Amino acid sequence: MRRDRLAHKLELHPDRLFPAEPGVRAIARELYDQVTALPIVSPHGHTDAAWFARNEPFGNATELLLQPDHYLFRMLYSQGVPLAALGIGAAADPREGWRIFAEHYHLFRGTPSRLWLDWVFAEVFGLEVRLEGETADLYFDTITAALHHPGFQPRALFERFNIEVLATTESPLDTLDHHRAIRESGWHGRVITAYRPDPVVDPEFEGFQANLDELSGLTGEDCRTWGGYLAAHRARRTVFKAMGATSTDHGHPSARTEDLSARETEALFGRILAGDFSSWDAELFRAQMLTEMAAMSLDDGLVMQIHPGSFRNHNARLFAAHGRDKGADIPTRTDYIQALKPLLDRFGNERDFTLILFTLDESAYARELAPLAGHYPCLRLGPAWWFHDSPEGMRRFRRTTTETAGFYNTVGFNDDTRAFLSIPARHDVARRIDCGFLAELVAEHRLELDEAHEVARALAYDLAKQAYRL
Amino acid sequence: MRRDRLAHKLELHPDRLFPAEPGVRAIARELYDQVTALPIVSPHGHTDAAWFARNEPFGNATELLLQPDHYLFRMLYSQGVPLAALGIGAAADPREGWRIFAEHYHLFRGTPSRLWLDWVFAEVFGLEVRLEGETADLYFDTITAALHHPGFQPRALFERFNIEVLATTESPLDTLDHHRAIRESGWHGRVITAYRPDPVVDPEFEGFQANLDELSGLTGEDCRTWGGYLAAHRARRTVFKAMGATSTDHGHPSARTEDLSARETEALFGRILAGDFSSWDAELFRAQMLTEMAAMSLDDGLVMQIHPGSFRNHNARLFAAHGRDKGADIPTRTDYIQALKPLLDRFGNERDFTLILFTLDESAYARELAPLAGHYPCLRLGPAWWFHDSPEGMRRFRRTTTETAGFYNTVGFNDDTRAFLSIPARHDVARRIDCGFLAELVAEHRLELDEAHEVARALAYDLAKQAYRL
Amino acid sequence: MRRDRLAHKLELHPDRLFPAEPGVRAIARELYDQVTALPIVSPHGHTDAAWFARNEPFGNATELLLQPDHYLFRMLYSQGVPLAALGIGAAADPREGWRIFAEHYHLFRGTPSRLWLDWVFAEVFGLEVRLEGETADLYFDTITAALHHPGFQPRALFERFNIEVLATTESPLDTLDHHRAIRESGWHGRVITAYRPDPVVDPEFEGFQANLDELSGLTGEDCRTWGGYLAAHRARRTVFKAMGATSTDHGHPSARTEDLSARETEALFGRILAGDFSSWDAELFRAQMLTEMAAMSLDDGLVMQIHPGSFRNHNARLFAAHGRDKGADIPTRTDYIQALKPLLDRFGNERDFTLILFTLDESAYARELAPLAGHYPCLRLGPAWWFHDSPEGMRRFRRTTTETAGFYNTVGFNDDTRAFLSIPARHDVARRIDCGFLAELVAEHRLELDEAHEVARALAYDLAKQAYRL
Repeated sequence: MRRDRLAHKLELHPDRLFPAEPGVRAIARELYDQVTALPIVSPHGHTDAAWFARNEPFGNATELLLQPDHYLFRMLYSQGVPLAALGIGAAADPREGWRIFAEHYHLFRGTPSRLWLDWVFAEVFGLEVRLEGETADLYFDTITAALHHPGFQPRALFERFNIEVLATTESPLDTLDHHRAIRESGWHGRVITAYRPDPVVDPEFEGFQANLDELSGLTGEDCRTWGGYLAAHRARRTVFKAMGATSTDHGHPSARTEDLSARETEALFGRILAGDFSSWDAELFRAQMLTEMAAMSLDDGLVMQIHPGSFRNHNARLFAAHGRDKGADIPTRTDYIQALKPLLDRFGNERDFTLILFTLDESAYARELAPLAGHYPCLRLGPAWWFHDSPEGMRRFRRTTTETAGFYNTVGFNDDTRAFLSIPARHDVARRIDCGFLAELVAEHRLELDEAHEVARALAYDLAKQAYRL
Repeated sequence: MRRDRLAHKLELHPDRLFPAEPGVRAIARELYDQVTALPIVSPHGHTDAAWFARNEPFGNATELLLQPDHYLFRMLYSQGVPLAALGIGAAADPREGWRIFAEHYHLFRGTPSRLWLDWVFAEVFGLEVRLEGETADLYFDTITAALHHPGFQPRALFERFNIEVLATTESPLDTLDHHRAIRESGWHGRVITAYRPDPVVDPEFEGFQANLDELSGLTGEDCRTWGGYLAAHRARRTVFKAMGATSTDHGHPSARTEDLSARETEALFGRILAGDFSSWDAELFRAQMLTEMAAMSLDDGLVMQIHPGSFRNHNARLFAAHGRDKGADIPTRTDYIQALKPLLDRFGNERDFTLILFTLDESAYARELAPLAGHYPCLRLGPAWWFHDSPEGMRRFRRTTTETAGFYNTVGFNDDTRAFLSIPARHDVARRIDCGFLAELVAEHRLELDEAHEVARALAYDLAKQAYRL
Repeated sequence: MRRDRLAHKLELHPDRLFPAEPGVRAIARELYDQVTALPIVSPHGHTDAAWFARNEPFGNATELLLQPDHYLFRMLYSQGVPLAALGIGAAADPREGWRIFAEHYHLFRGTPSRLWLDWVFAEVFGLEVRLEGETADLYFDTITAALHHPGFQPRALFERFNIEVLATTESPLDTLDHHRAIRESGWHGRVITAYRPDPVVDPEFEGFQANLDELSGLTGEDCRTWGGYLAAHRARRTVFKAMGATSTDHGHPSARTEDLSARETEALFGRILAGDFSSWDAELFRAQMLTEMAAMSLDDGLVMQIHPGSFRNHNARLFAAHGRDKGADIPTRTDYIQALKPLLDRFGNERDFTLILFTLDESAYARELAPLAGHYPCLRLGPAWWFHDSPEGMRRFRRTTTETAGFYNTVGFNDDTRAFLSIPARHDVARRIDCGFLAELVAEHRLELDEAHEVARALAYDLAKQAYRL
């Protein structure tokens, strides 16, 4: 039995993720062959700049692959595995944590995590058998040993992965020392930052009031005046641009925007500063700040992204015990039509402004987002996001947005990940799925093959560079 | 003409419902071959325990197949057939009703009812021509004659259908005499009950106040006190467990839950008892009762099901003339994120509690339900329900839930039917569709074949037994 | 390079839009071959009766194909092309506008506009190379020249397109002179009108008060009394019927209906007339008027259509500069369950009344619309509409409505277009997609081939004639 189970091979099939019908598959393969070697453009993600600044080896399999990945431990948790057993929020033997993961690896059947991980196991670490209980130690030892070789250091992997540019995401309170260190190191990998001001824009963010004071300290502006607060944003955006930023990002509960008068805005800001505000005020302030940020983008050219609609920390007890980002963020129904109107009424027709929209509510793809992006000059659609960053999710994205918004109002792929080793796998999934979708259009004579080649390249590479001004 | 139309053969193709692409179809067939003979586990449904207690022959084709099946007569009604003509709410010649049905059988093209019925006609009754106007009498006579043979009595069919366990659904006011009679009869068929307390939980249910008094009488508890009311529920749940129940079921207009203080709850219950409540109060009471039921489930181990989001009796005139369950229940948009939070805040992290969620609002699959089930230890997803219990509905369910929740946070199939003869057909459809979905994953190299075999068996059999503790 | 690009051929593949799998494709082709020659029944659209009354040649390529088609210029606008450059809201050289269009033709890859246009280019004008920058002038010259030949006059095209009946849509304020002229001309093309009373029913429509006065003038009724207003509607409906109308159409922001008492209605109408109403009042009045229109339909037999859920003129600056219908209408989430209940409570069970429902919110297909249409005798489902009138949109429509509503509660295809030359292309797309869908059912043994033939014909021809009483 044991021998039998050990015999499960791990192989990445060259035709994986292509449609099964042989004629369509042949077209998909032909399209994919032309884009597979293109460099990776990663315009939005959550890797840690410190990795590339310090270039220190990653620790062990559990620390690198399991503990930071909420996609993984949320699934284990859903099936009764305590987070503490995985070393999350508690000390635990990393090998034991890895064994638990291995024994539950079947839970990931049919999920994108399985695809990404198998790629990492096979391509990065050369493993040739499937992860399961019996192979847990082999995996742990192989991976952990490899991580101490120079070829597995962050910069070496960055180069091996053929990454042309990689954007991280930082708070305005981040001093960007790691980004500065990368630039001063002489290493030529292009790692850039992006401006994510939620901690100083969202009055309900943990530590918001202290964050404002920190922002004052960092910029020399008095963030307790409306003018000083805006000036501080402008100052930090300039610093971020100097560290390569071409974009901002905004993770709000909704996509709501406002365009209040100066008097209303100052009064609102006053209530926020006084800590005397309702959740309605907080929403109003976030909404107004999106429009303020758009105004700044018109000035400094930073591309704006909105990632709305996640109910953060839905599990109250888990949040109390473990804090943010523990797999308990749940999507909510999200409106765009009313929500974006104030901002669009002001800036929607600007051709030099780019606003990239994301959603966790797929019912908005065909109903709201594609019609909006197929009309407003400033709008583009971000790729299928988070829970929808998956083969089926990407297919639904293309099937429901293309007919109204076309391909050229979309922006190529974002990996949006902190799981650095999985970045090539994620881009590869996107390229395969997009080529498969294009192949179906070709096979149904809805698109000519020469055009499909152009679009495949655009989706894999060109559109991301253009939309994010990279 | 008549001869020609009579020549339409009725044949169940062995490859029905498998994907058409030959490579995928071959994999689907291989997977299906391993699960087709597994016994039927039916953990939730609406058959009548009296059938198995009494084991009397069913009456005639119309009485057995048409009159109780609101899927059928709602479609006929939508095309102008009066219910009275079918013998619903009025006396009518069953043969005449059957003829009308036969003449309209084309209306069911492309619907699951057609699949289920054709299976019943061919497999149970051996019919070899299609149902249509010309064959109406042949059908009526063949079926009605067969029903008088011992092999077509309820228990014989139960055995012939290879049913391992069949759950019915009863109100707390049901004395469960039929279940008791089954047990005392010496027959070994496993028919169990489930606890569906809507008639004594929903203040807007017809006869609610009288129902409370009947519950008091049945339990000896004073249901006009909050303590007595809860004790009565506990008492009935214990009786239901003795008749095999492993689950409760709750058919509320929404998924709303509450976790009110004892004082608030008692005050609310007071208003309900006094008949002096708003529809808001009624909703609040149902919401609070879901949390109370969850608390009881933690004590007695009954698995909890919520079937929310049906607007019952939407057609006012039909309801006035014919009463409940006449095909006029319409799904509504259903929120889970805010709705379930009070219950989940209290019990969401309990590993010994199981709450199975259903929906009639498919937009919640990927946006809300899969993310919730892929995180909370107590949650599982029930299968595609009611209008979505269909080939396309099941495919959408798998495509939109698997990537986030995996397979193992789902619970296999429910037939949820009162159409006893169609139970094998319904499970067969589910098995075929699931095997087809798995075959697509295998053909696209997203899952290995040995794993697909394990998952196919889990979906067809194991998961239902585990989730429902059978 | 130039020569190479000029070499791109334009060819309409005979198998376009059929599923790629060869077995399914063969069935689709067989089904399609039986319906491709059926005449076009176009029961709802926006062509101009004046074209057929006057039978004057169309002007040039830009004027005919680009400037009236908001599908086209909205996409160009979304990518930064000013409307003025296309001659919209400004004078511009039509050839220059056409060149801009040609240079941006790649934006339409994957969209239905591309399919429709390529058909027009190839089939109507005999073009054999693809539209792109290099072929812009060839196209402009070829099309513009052809338009001066008698074979390209409106009536000749109508006959060439094999149109059996074509409905236009007019306001009650339209004198229908063009329709009268068509009838009096001796030409036998069947062009009929449809009653679209939004300008005199929606208090928020531009010019509503003046429109009422015009309606009074036209009918001799005093539209400033409730009785006179209703009588005026009845009078115009009678006139419309005389010009062939078999239907009414209602383009409201929501599907809301009301059934107010006479006293409430008159009071509401008084506030509306006084111009002293809230947006709530306006919505209430539109809602009440749907029920009034239904009542009139019961009397005069006009089939009623509701096209709800478009947020008109979302782009405030564009509306100020260019007015209505400039590609800035965006769909909104649309409820049907609560919204239609007042009307359905009154007329839902009438078998002689037909109400055809449309949606821009696809999440309502399976959740609300199919269940409603699969029950209420008066209801039918209109085809996939506007942004969803596309190959993928039509497939989603069939996949999500058929299992609950069947085929026979749908009404075949509407082209709903003012782009006259594209009408055959649009019907052809619908026929191909429906045959492809049916072929999948046949290939999966969910429907027999002889039945699929019947359904294919019904979807292509019979159902439209029956539902619209043509």
